[in-house]
Amino acid sequence: MQEKQVESQWIYRGKILDLKLDTVVLPDGKQTAREVVVHPGAAAVAALNDSGEVLLIRQFRYPAGEVLWELPAGKLERDEDPLECARRELAEETGYGAREWEHVSTFYTTPGFSDEIMYMYLARGLYQEKKSPDNDEFIEVHEMPLAKALELIRTGEIKDAKTIVGIFLAGQRTIKNGAVLKNI
Amino acid sequence: MQEKQVESQWIYRGKILDLKLDTVVLPDGKQTAREVVVHPGAAAVAALNDSGEVLLIRQFRYPAGEVLWELPAGKLERDEDPLECARRELAEETGYGAREWEHVSTFYTTPGFSDEIMYMYLARGLYQEKKSPDNDEFIEVHEMPLAKALELIRTGEIKDAKTIVGIFLAGQRTIKNGAVLKNI
Repeated sequence: MQEKQVESQWIYRGKILDLKLDTVVLPDGKQTAREVVVHPGAAAVAALNDSGEVLLIRQFRYPAGEVLWELPAGKLERDEDPLECARRELAEETGYGAREWEHVSTFYTTPGFSDEIMYMYLARGLYQEKKSPDNDEFIEVHEMPLAKALELIRTGEIKDAKTIVGIFLAGQRTIKNGAVLKNI
Repeated sequence: MQEKQVESQWIYRGKILDLKLDTVVLPDGKQTAREVVVHPGAAAVAALNDSGEVLLIRQFRYPAGEVLWELPAGKLERDEDPLECARRELAEETGYGAREWEHVSTFYTTPGFSDEIMYMYLARGLYQEKKSPDNDEFIEVHEMPLAKALELIRTGEIKDAKTIVGIFLAGQRTIKNGAVLKNI
């Protein structure tokens, strides 16, 4: 099922992504073009406070053209460990640090056209640090009960893929109510 | 929190995606660049057979460099209704049609750098049609109990974001066992 690269050409080298156009040989010997958005990877964090509420941010996303509910997240810097990235983004975007960290998933966001990989963490034992968003980030921070966040997934108000994944995974691991998300 | 476009330039017009480089005004009046991967949108389907197993495909994803477990999915054709796209992709990739369709989520896959929107459906009442993958698709079809799919999310073997989202949503709606995923 593998595809083998026979040619690779940079189309664009950018600020947050690069684009390359490769030619590959398919399993049947034919050739085709593959467009690949090359991305440094990213880390995201479902951070739960002592009341079991999850930290969510609201920010305008230009490609989406709207303000979205999201988990704190951001791109890996060069040679950055994903956990360090998650700690850094949590602090920058929400002003919180966390004492307990658990890696809960690593997934591709869009494997059809990008190599972006997302490292998802669950963080607990929050304490206040200093918020310091990037110059081009304008962010609101909210604390929301997990059950409410799951409800906003159901209603479609939470519509960012990594955020949906992170909230489901946090729910799996933390909601102890016998009826909800147990034993999977 | 909005950002306003002041300039827009096409970097690339491709087969599955386009890339534009926009200049925007931030809420504080400063300007910055925004790279946007422009995508036609896509539809995916969690299709459950009468035994409650979900249809999963295995295919090599060149950007990821590996074979992934995924829900059947594909890009919207021009002016295509997302439900029609989901029906078409299910038939092309698995050979199945379905009598019952439910729209369960619409989400952005990577709102930080792309406008790609994903329409997720739950399909039941499957019947055999003719499989007809695209020329450059080499696909294996599997039927897997939902509980097993949830386990493969936990172990990290399922690592495609839309597939994780779709399996969780299918689990929410279908697993009736009192202990699992009920009431959310």
